[in-house]
Amino acid sequence: MLDYAALSALAAVVREGSFERAARSLSVTPSAISQRIRALEERVGCALVVRDSPCRATETGRRLCQHVDHVRLLEQSLHGALPALAGQGEARVPVPVGVNADSLATWVAAPLAAFAAAQPVLLEVSVDDQDHTTEWLRSGAVLAAVTATARPAAGCNSFPLGAMRYVAAASPAFVRRHFGEGVGAGSLARAPSLVFNTKDELQSRWARRLCHRDVQLPRHTLPSPHAFVTAALAGMGWGLHPTGLIDAHLRDGSLVELVPGTPFDVPLHWQHARAAGGMLDGLTSEVLAAARKALLQP
Amino acid sequence: MLDYAALSALAAVVREGSFERAARSLSVTPSAISQRIRALEERVGCALVVRDSPCRATETGRRLCQHVDHVRLLEQSLHGALPALAGQGEARVPVPVGVNADSLATWVAAPLAAFAAAQPVLLEVSVDDQDHTTEWLRSGAVLAAVTATARPAAGCNSFPLGAMRYVAAASPAFVRRHFGEGVGAGSLARAPSLVFNTKDELQSRWARRLCHRDVQLPRHTLPSPHAFVTAALAGMGWGLHPTGLIDAHLRDGSLVELVPGTPFDVPLHWQHARAAGGMLDGLTSEVLAAARKALLQP
Repeated sequence: MLDYAALSALAAVVREGSFERAARSLSVTPSAISQRIRALEERVGCALVVRDSPCRATETGRRLCQHVDHVRLLEQSLHGALPALAGQGEARVPVPVGVNADSLATWVAAPLAAFAAAQPVLLEVSVDDQDHTTEWLRSGAVLAAVTATARPAAGCNSFPLGAMRYVAAASPAFVRRHFGEGVGAGSLARAPSLVFNTKDELQSRWARRLCHRDVQLPRHTLPSPHAFVTAALAGMGWGLHPTGLIDAHLRDGSLVELVPGTPFDVPLHWQHARAAGGMLDGLTSEVLAAARKALLQP
Repeated sequence: MLDYAALSALAAVVREGSFERAARSLSVTPSAISQRIRALEERVGCALVVRDSPCRATETGRRLCQHVDHVRLLEQSLHGALPALAGQGEARVPVPVGVNADSLATWVAAPLAAFAAAQPVLLEVSVDDQDHTTEWLRSGAVLAAVTATARPAAGCNSFPLGAMRYVAAASPAFVRRHFGEGVGAGSLARAPSLVFNTKDELQSRWARRLCHRDVQLPRHTLPSPHAFVTAALAGMGWGLHPTGLIDAHLRDGSLVELVPGTPFDVPLHWQHARAAGGMLDGLTSEVLAAARKALLQP
């Protein structure tokens, strides 16, 4: 069989980002970590870690880390069946999960937390947009993810979650100032929009659907869903907000829809690695139940 | 003088991450962008852009982008003094700013938004922890930042903002389950903590101050200040929360301090590039006024 002490060292370096921190987390010396990884690299015949700051896995290294995650989860399921196996000091199992920022800011934090509070795991949540979390699943960087893609990544199961509803909104003063003569390609090309980061295409997609052509939007960048709302309230720009975050503001009139009746729905899916076994089934049930309440069901 | 059309192309590629998106944002063809950057690279004698996905600036490229930002801000101040210069369709000036996630989730979003709503700028807010925003200032990636460092980066002015107060807190059920026999090195080594990301040392620093030695904490990773609170409420782990985000929960008892009377204060500073001129003075006043109300003053 493979050398699991060496594989644990590799996983720790990739998780912690440095040999020193990995050594501390496994309570061994950095030179022990370094020897184990070198031995593994000699056996596999290629580099497994890019010695950078922070350290990163090579493609082969990433594949091995994924294997370690799977084995750990399988062990955990075994502990469930054979409680005698699970020592008192048994370490919690790391479960890397990818979610989009808007889901984390609204509905998905609660089911993740409920799962993590009940199970002997350490959740490692990474955030990117729903198109990029699929990449993470494919590369094995995460065991489960909220994605925009229905088609299961290799080795994954996929479940529809429903749609996240967004509304294009801004403060009444902002609308008066920038859209006094209506919302169209001309006014949208001048009024500053809010985007989460340079990869965020939601505002452009909404504008394209409205105007039937591409509009080059001036963009403020603000990578925080809650700061997005604060910025909209202050009249900094218009943007697409998850309805869950601005319902109260729409009701009290501090934010208004740019064009009433033009919500933008983004269907989301939950995917998880099949090989990770029964442990993720509990997480999947929690996530699906929360999505059923929070997201728009077909 | 330098070729500012070429410099604008460079800045657009770095900002947008690709030649295609840069071309769209400047309303020219991708081949025009590519020619301008090649000409600039020949003149400077080294690569300015790493053609990757996304494209990144080389160190020299970054230095030139910083120069473009400064010149744009100086032009903007000139427009203030000579309104006739500022054409109607004058493009807004990009202002890259670095802040820490907890500041963005609490007090700094409002002054940033107030500034951006009033000035002809496009704010580009990047988030990292307060130790790393200093790096961005140094490298010229941002013109202003909330930092943990009082000492001004080269070419910057520095202003004390006051301290962000954190409290180590968890749900009452979590405290009963994991700290029934008190909070010490032993219980902290077993109870899962919450960290924002692998660089987040707050929890470790608080534990070290309490126990007078390093404690290896089991860690859930959750890169969202609001999800941090949701996770704490659900009993997923203990962590250091900005008091602004959990005051109400401490009052109604849904969260409790792990060890009453052990807040952790992180002094913050505002730094901005001197060369960027008068435009940033307005932003600085807004930020300092908001900090005076929200942060702990010495």
